[in-house]
Amino acid sequence: MSYTTAELQKLSAFYKNQLLNNTVPFWFPKSIDKTYGGYLLMRDQDGSLIDDDKAVWIQGRAAWLLSTLYNTIEQKKEWLEGAKSGIDFLNQYCFDTDGQMFFHVTRDGKPIRKRRYYFSETFAVIANAAYAKASGDKKAADTARYLFGKCIEYSTTPGLLPAKFTGIRPSKGIGVPMIMMNTAQQLRETIGDERCDEWISKWIAEIKNDFVKDDIKCVMEQVAPDGSIIDHIDGRTLNPGHAIEGAWFILHEAKYRNHDPALIALGCKMLDYMWERGWDKEYGGILYFRDVYHKPVQEYWQDMKFWWPQNETIIATLLAYKLTGDEKYARWHKMIHDYAYSKFHDTRNGEWFGYLHRDGTIAQTAKGNLFKGPFHLPRQEWYCAQLLQDLD
Amino acid sequence: MSYTTAELQKLSAFYKNQLLNNTVPFWFPKSIDKTYGGYLLMRDQDGSLIDDDKAVWIQGRAAWLLSTLYNTIEQKKEWLEGAKSGIDFLNQYCFDTDGQMFFHVTRDGKPIRKRRYYFSETFAVIANAAYAKASGDKKAADTARYLFGKCIEYSTTPGLLPAKFTGIRPSKGIGVPMIMMNTAQQLRETIGDERCDEWISKWIAEIKNDFVKDDIKCVMEQVAPDGSIIDHIDGRTLNPGHAIEGAWFILHEAKYRNHDPALIALGCKMLDYMWERGWDKEYGGILYFRDVYHKPVQEYWQDMKFWWPQNETIIATLLAYKLTGDEKYARWHKMIHDYAYSKFHDTRNGEWFGYLHRDGTIAQTAKGNLFKGPFHLPRQEWYCAQLLQDLD
Repeated sequence: MSYTTAELQKLSAFYKNQLLNNTVPFWFPKSIDKTYGGYLLMRDQDGSLIDDDKAVWIQGRAAWLLSTLYNTIEQKKEWLEGAKSGIDFLNQYCFDTDGQMFFHVTRDGKPIRKRRYYFSETFAVIANAAYAKASGDKKAADTARYLFGKCIEYSTTPGLLPAKFTGIRPSKGIGVPMIMMNTAQQLRETIGDERCDEWISKWIAEIKNDFVKDDIKCVMEQVAPDGSIIDHIDGRTLNPGHAIEGAWFILHEAKYRNHDPALIALGCKMLDYMWERGWDKEYGGILYFRDVYHKPVQEYWQDMKFWWPQNETIIATLLAYKLTGDEKYARWHKMIHDYAYSKFHDTRNGEWFGYLHRDGTIAQTAKGNLFKGPFHLPRQEWYCAQLLQDLD
Repeated sequence: MSYTTAELQKLSAFYKNQLLNNTVPFWFPKSIDKTYGGYLLMRDQDGSLIDDDKAVWIQGRAAWLLSTLYNTIEQKKEWLEGAKSGIDFLNQYCFDTDGQMFFHVTRDGKPIRKRRYYFSETFAVIANAAYAKASGDKKAADTARYLFGKCIEYSTTPGLLPAKFTGIRPSKGIGVPMIMMNTAQQLRETIGDERCDEWISKWIAEIKNDFVKDDIKCVMEQVAPDGSIIDHIDGRTLNPGHAIEGAWFILHEAKYRNHDPALIALGCKMLDYMWERGWDKEYGGILYFRDVYHKPVQEYWQDMKFWWPQNETIIATLLAYKLTGDEKYARWHKMIHDYAYSKFHDTRNGEWFGYLHRDGTIAQTAKGNLFKGPFHLPRQEWYCAQLLQDLD
């Protein structure tokens, strides 16, 4: 199958309508914390608050979302003010005295937990960069650029952050080059930063050389520093939804670089490999973890269906179709779109459930917690609507 | 219903037969590593090895099991030699230079990961104590007593081990008094240690005073240092199978203390509360996590059925029935026994699967990994057979 222009226009309108009339209104304005700033995002299916703690990743992601809506959809005052609330909270409460950010804080900004990596920082970069573009705030721009530099330093300086494992079996994850690439793309496409293009090329080269395995048609989640496969339980564990997210970051770069054919080929290859590994032929949807050699996966939720791998696959398939016209990607996009909106979307209360069993039944009803909030779903609806908007 | 003596005799024979002719032969002698010592326990359903790494907890638990079989079932040379292999591996490879034990090592004993708590140590105590009784090895007895002292020191000295969380919202888990109580019971009942009775009384008092909530009929998994409920996602999360394991540790103590009626009442109450919270009325079996106020649980595998909560509930219900004669416990025991042996037992290859979906279908097939090995199932079969052996 392929999509007609009319069908793509209909999809574009669908995503934009879902975003603005279903997903965003589930969260805002009610989640803006007028007392302490930031957002109260840990909510059950009906929007009731289950915890008033704040997850630092998601505070940043929500501020990014509101700023991005302001920058790209409509200059609504409430979005800009909402974004400012998150930026202020991040700046005031989410940094430790050593300059590292926390992971989990109380409603009033007291630190509960700091983790050994710097994903809080990457989300603070995209939040500050998008907010700086929206507001013209120079301090936010400086913060975004400064933190981007810190993230590069963390990612290139072994031992700067404490290690979880000994040095006996060194490994590296695809998560670092992936998130850094997307952070740099966001920074570049909001306020600009001359470091970004070169670094993005390096991270793509790392993914291509060390994580993409053509001989076994696979994108590894973790490898040894030289790119070899670590044949132990953890080293064999694949995360198809994550690799597919990486695929569309690379396809986005291809699009940015005037449809660079080598990057299109790389991104499509990654999507192809991991669709084959991750798509559940029995029940539909993208499975959470797989073993590269089809052995048992240790992570307990390995065959559950989480919301975000579906969001990333909806973007990746649509973007691959837009860039290549290959009918396969239209077919895959329709499969994942139909599966996800029929199983995850809460037609009663809005937004999506996050956690389904393999067979598509709901495992638990939270819309927001320490790990889920207004990010993957609204980003997918926003990105897909933007991608198709030239058809309107 | 109640069990007739003939039914209990049949159960006793069933457990002993399963233990010796199904569960233990799945693991031994094939898992004893003749090259490096210790055990190769990370196995798929058919016994094939999926990883040659060694989980330190499970190395200790396996050495405990083999020593305990030797001490209580039959003085088989292969069990004593097998136990020695694990004890030697623990002593030679599993301690860091600071005296703390590792969590995860390679086949040849190189450290992969150390964690911020001391459960490796508690399993090394019971392994060394049981082995010392089996072998008469004085060094093993000294090691068991020394490590037991270290565990008491860790548990009573805040800040001695690095913290995962800041001090903003202090909490404590029921895991520490539970595992320390059982460690002390094992130490006392193998080689004896005069510290045990007093400490066991303290840990039971802590559980009773701080974790058991009569007003809401619940055993908390985590509380504030003063025993109050922490009304956030983590603080509300209950682990019914774990609390039921704690219940039988207390019932075991009641039995040891000449059927102490106050301890029988406490253990039965904990079992009653958490059976009500954990038993899945729709599909049977004990669910993994619940929320104390019936809100969504964040841990992804919260409604899965794992092997070990079923094992602990089989012991707890049988022990409660033996101590009280209350027909309810016979009924519950039959329910959990029938559920678990019909869903988890691998009649083709022996042993149990570890990880089922809520509806009882198999989620993944590993019999052993970093967290599962020859412990909860063989301990259950051994304990229940021992408990009923006076009927033979």
